[in-house]
Amino acid sequence: MPEGQTQKYFVVFQPSGRRGHIDRGQTLKQASRELGVDIEGICGDAGTCGTCKVRIEDGFFEKYGVKSRRSNLSPLTEAERKFINTNMEDQGYRLACQAQIQGDVVVFVPEESRMGKQIVRKAAREMVIEVKPTVKKYYVELAKATLEDTLGDWERLQAELNSRFGLTNLSIDYPVLLNLQELVRRDNWRVTVSVWMDKEVIRVEPGLVEKGYGLAVDIGTTTVAGYLCDLNSGAVVTTESMMNPQVVYGEDVMSRITYCMTNQHGLEHMNQAIVRGINELAGRAAAQAHIKRRDIIDMTVVGNTCMHHLFLNIDPRHIGRSPFPPAIHHSLDIKARDLGLKISPGAYVYVLPIEAGFVGADNVGVLIAEAPYQQDSLELIIDIGTNGELVLGNREKLISTSCATGPAFEGAEIKHGMRAAPGAIEKLEIDKDTREVRFKVIGREGWNTDLENVEAKGICGSGIIDVLPQLFLAGIIDKTGRFKKDLATPRLRVTENGPEFVITWAKETSIGRDIVISQEDVRNIQLAKGAMYAGAKIMMRHLGINKLEKVILAGAFGSYIDKESAALLALFPDCDPENIYAVGNAAGDGARIALLNADKRAEADDIARKIEYIELTVEPDFDKVFSEAMWLPHMKDTFPHLTHLLADKATKQG
Amino acid sequence: MPEGQTQKYFVVFQPSGRRGHIDRGQTLKQASRELGVDIEGICGDAGTCGTCKVRIEDGFFEKYGVKSRRSNLSPLTEAERKFINTNMEDQGYRLACQAQIQGDVVVFVPEESRMGKQIVRKAAREMVIEVKPTVKKYYVELAKATLEDTLGDWERLQAELNSRFGLTNLSIDYPVLLNLQELVRRDNWRVTVSVWMDKEVIRVEPGLVEKGYGLAVDIGTTTVAGYLCDLNSGAVVTTESMMNPQVVYGEDVMSRITYCMTNQHGLEHMNQAIVRGINELAGRAAAQAHIKRRDIIDMTVVGNTCMHHLFLNIDPRHIGRSPFPPAIHHSLDIKARDLGLKISPGAYVYVLPIEAGFVGADNVGVLIAEAPYQQDSLELIIDIGTNGELVLGNREKLISTSCATGPAFEGAEIKHGMRAAPGAIEKLEIDKDTREVRFKVIGREGWNTDLENVEAKGICGSGIIDVLPQLFLAGIIDKTGRFKKDLATPRLRVTENGPEFVITWAKETSIGRDIVISQEDVRNIQLAKGAMYAGAKIMMRHLGINKLEKVILAGAFGSYIDKESAALLALFPDCDPENIYAVGNAAGDGARIALLNADKRAEADDIARKIEYIELTVEPDFDKVFSEAMWLPHMKDTFPHLTHLLADKATKQG
Repeated sequence: MPEGQTQKYFVVFQPSGRRGHIDRGQTLKQASRELGVDIEGICGDAGTCGTCKVRIEDGFFEKYGVKSRRSNLSPLTEAERKFINTNMEDQGYRLACQAQIQGDVVVFVPEESRMGKQIVRKAAREMVIEVKPTVKKYYVELAKATLEDTLGDWERLQAELNSRFGLTNLSIDYPVLLNLQELVRRDNWRVTVSVWMDKEVIRVEPGLVEKGYGLAVDIGTTTVAGYLCDLNSGAVVTTESMMNPQVVYGEDVMSRITYCMTNQHGLEHMNQAIVRGINELAGRAAAQAHIKRRDIIDMTVVGNTCMHHLFLNIDPRHIGRSPFPPAIHHSLDIKARDLGLKISPGAYVYVLPIEAGFVGADNVGVLIAEAPYQQDSLELIIDIGTNGELVLGNREKLISTSCATGPAFEGAEIKHGMRAAPGAIEKLEIDKDTREVRFKVIGREGWNTDLENVEAKGICGSGIIDVLPQLFLAGIIDKTGRFKKDLATPRLRVTENGPEFVITWAKETSIGRDIVISQEDVRNIQLAKGAMYAGAKIMMRHLGINKLEKVILAGAFGSYIDKESAALLALFPDCDPENIYAVGNAAGDGARIALLNADKRAEADDIARKIEYIELTVEPDFDKVFSEAMWLPHMKDTFPHLTHLLADKATKQG
Repeated sequence: MPEGQTQKYFVVFQPSGRRGHIDRGQTLKQASRELGVDIEGICGDAGTCGTCKVRIEDGFFEKYGVKSRRSNLSPLTEAERKFINTNMEDQGYRLACQAQIQGDVVVFVPEESRMGKQIVRKAAREMVIEVKPTVKKYYVELAKATLEDTLGDWERLQAELNSRFGLTNLSIDYPVLLNLQELVRRDNWRVTVSVWMDKEVIRVEPGLVEKGYGLAVDIGTTTVAGYLCDLNSGAVVTTESMMNPQVVYGEDVMSRITYCMTNQHGLEHMNQAIVRGINELAGRAAAQAHIKRRDIIDMTVVGNTCMHHLFLNIDPRHIGRSPFPPAIHHSLDIKARDLGLKISPGAYVYVLPIEAGFVGADNVGVLIAEAPYQQDSLELIIDIGTNGELVLGNREKLISTSCATGPAFEGAEIKHGMRAAPGAIEKLEIDKDTREVRFKVIGREGWNTDLENVEAKGICGSGIIDVLPQLFLAGIIDKTGRFKKDLATPRLRVTENGPEFVITWAKETSIGRDIVISQEDVRNIQLAKGAMYAGAKIMMRHLGINKLEKVILAGAFGSYIDKESAALLALFPDCDPENIYAVGNAAGDGARIALLNADKRAEADDIARKIEYIELTVEPDFDKVFSEAMWLPHMKDTFPHLTHLLADKATKQG
């Protein structure tokens, strides 16, 4: 091998069959990215989550026709030993993020390690938005240049836009100027001009072009959604969504920050991943609408502080450690070309402002969509994502906070948790007498009891929100979250890791094993819901109130949450169920509003500056408030509006 | 040879020895560009100027050891036959722009076809400029971020710049934002910020950095000059200049436009050539000043309309044909990165406005440097370049025009004309009695008569301006420009192409041939000076005046012109020699003024809009005015201020 060249080996992934030659020393996870194979991973390749298990099918050293236990991979690491026992080791199991390639290998990716194509629940909500776009189109017919009229082409256009539409002090984007002479002549001096903020010409098209398009983008930690809108009517022409391609670098915000800090080109990789992703999304949306990607002349973007920084190619390390200062709070207008976005090159991308901590542009999007600052009633807005964001207040005052719910509600850190993909249990009920479970699975019509092939694979967020209230109401766990003992059901059993409850038996699954909720899963859900509740409670104390008048549940899966389950789980203090609303992806709605109404952009900066951020971790009694909130529904607080449900439970248990 | 690949041949240029493999079918001129050999060329490879003669040294077909006349090049073209007679053909002469490579060749580039390193006479003039830069530096010390103070880094910087310096509504350039967090922390929250127009932060440097630098660039058709200035003091730190690298694509404006129109990537080539050239110039200037190229935080650019368009990467085809509309008249502020310039990436490049026709940003530079709009006296400003530009007027009214002087004053279209490079005759006198010639050569001290080795190579612009008045005063040509007959001097002789006058004998040259002025050369100089005079006269008629109060001679070689020679040649109507000034590179001065004084930029747009452009070619009697002006000094007009000189001549002749 010539010096300076790295040896490459042949790697095949099964069952997809994807294959290619990979540099010696790359991990199987890196190889999977290169070959387009999606393998789960929550910890950002730290070897701490164990979700990227794969099985080596071929690639063992052979000697005299006998396979050795030594494979064409680096030896098992300490990190791997936590997840892979000797029995599994004999079967060839490895963590893809740890095993390095040292020879040709065939790798099998088991069902549970595959990332399913997520069902993205980010459909656009019907809203009435006053259409007042930032980019407007103007059609003009120019007088031809003559020897007596020596005006430059730009001055000619400028004069016409002034006399016809009263536009003054216009400038022209430099790349647009480059082709101006050719464009004005192509259709006999008739052109349609796109003007940004009535200030700058960002596009020139020959002839009359009536339609203008903009794209509102919501960059979630897990999901990216794009709403292609008609800038004249305000209508959503098409909605497209995709997994955030950064997911392969870490499932949550903190693991992506860690990936940035521990990989030399970490920021570059993640920035390029999201930019490529948005370009793909824009391309798909454009194709749906039968336009070109370059016809998109405006874009707005929301995302939490970390997504915001990664999208902008700003190192997020400083927002990852105290005192968490972001690079910028204010909104930004950046040329699409400076961001690498392949929409109309002169277009500006408007990035909504961020608040503080991880309360980012996505929450500002929620704010301008819900406008609590125009309400009299005291509202609590909960945006459930990988990070929980809370807003409390009304027109008098607004405060916000973020709490580390962890990814439990997104299906991570739960033994059989998964994303909202086909096979996910999205809704479940436990019979209070028989303790039998019935559930619904994404991709199947009706309840499991009515189906022949259920093929459940795991439990997604809305199912996870159901499970604790159901276990509690059926008397399977007590109010501290502990499993009860000696219940007359085979579903509750004790393993070496403690008790667990069987949601469904292996025969109804596609993974060939029972899907269970373990004691640890219960704890993780309690931690998530406790953090949310504690945050809400501390905020109420800040405002000196003890009663919520209205609760708004937002989030990519917000509209699918059973609001009674959410109330019973006590994601938030007591509130009349009549006044609880699930609004879906309010952050995406906010991006859409900012796209369609220029005034709302000023409003966004205004409210982002005015809202007061509460840092929960500096509250002296936070731990106490938090631990009390982990009880079901709470250690001390009462829930007058849930009395009928809880009383019913008390009866059954009694 | 594999299909689809082009055969390459080995080409060597002598005497430089540069060599390489070149695609079959490329011309020798294309090969010379690729290998970095400078061969003259005025016509843009059209085969019409004959200046790119080269001699084939090796590469003839051989048969039985006998060289054939057929070489490894395409056959002689019709175009070549005009310049290469059969005698030269036998010696192996070809035009480099015509001969296509069909095999290995060794090419000798004769002295007269080589482009010398030009002596660039664009030194900065001493001027008093009020320093009021567009980009200013501000030093601030920031309070560190704490948990109680969650301001973003940008908002923190913004607040400090507001409270310390009263700067409001600041924005920050996106790429600067990317590294802001790192930069503010590098020197313990102390930074120096460069602010453009008190509007936008375009650079952040750790710690205290007092000095700020800007570069004023004058893109001439032939020469590019850069003045690196200290933005605080206004001082010129260093001056750098270079040949305009576009010269290889054509010597004058029209041949470059033709190159653009006839070559698929013509615009791209020429744009990249000038951008690379300016980057090199900036790098050299920065090195001289012991700074980095990235420390240049502001730049201004002047150039005629064609140079302006090529620099901006705008196709100049429309300014090349009637009605000659430019893409834009107005000044532009463009990010250096959008232009491909490697100065501070956030810096703006200010491109001065253009007037009309070929009267471009260079002339606007002259205007703000000379400010005729603030004068009472009626001034004529002549900017002598490859294109002549004229301004006439005072504070009441100003008009401008351009005239196609042709490149005669730059040494082209003159048999032994050359650029101002070593070996060029830059000044000459003819004794009225003996008709002997004495002259000065660039690179040598003193007159030729006092030197042992003269080694003259040709005549440059200032020498060309001397030659007609000297021939006229010595009675060698008559007032129509015709050589007289039967004069008692061996220097005047008749060839098959008509009479010619020997400036210097072969022994005093480095080219081994007599340097002469032919009848055709006299005609070309007459055409150039006649165009200038006619332009001035028509402008005077427009303003209803018949007397010039002041004449300003500008141009890259303006300060070296003998103003008496210019007056006797009658580049302009009669004027008191006391009121004739040679100001040197006024266009470059204008670029410097715009760099150092922001108010002057507004003034530039103002005057560019107000000045009235006169299109000479639409004047019905232009031809008559022009042909009268070709006489020496003029067919009809009188020159009261030159009476003593002309009378003297009359005496000698009489």
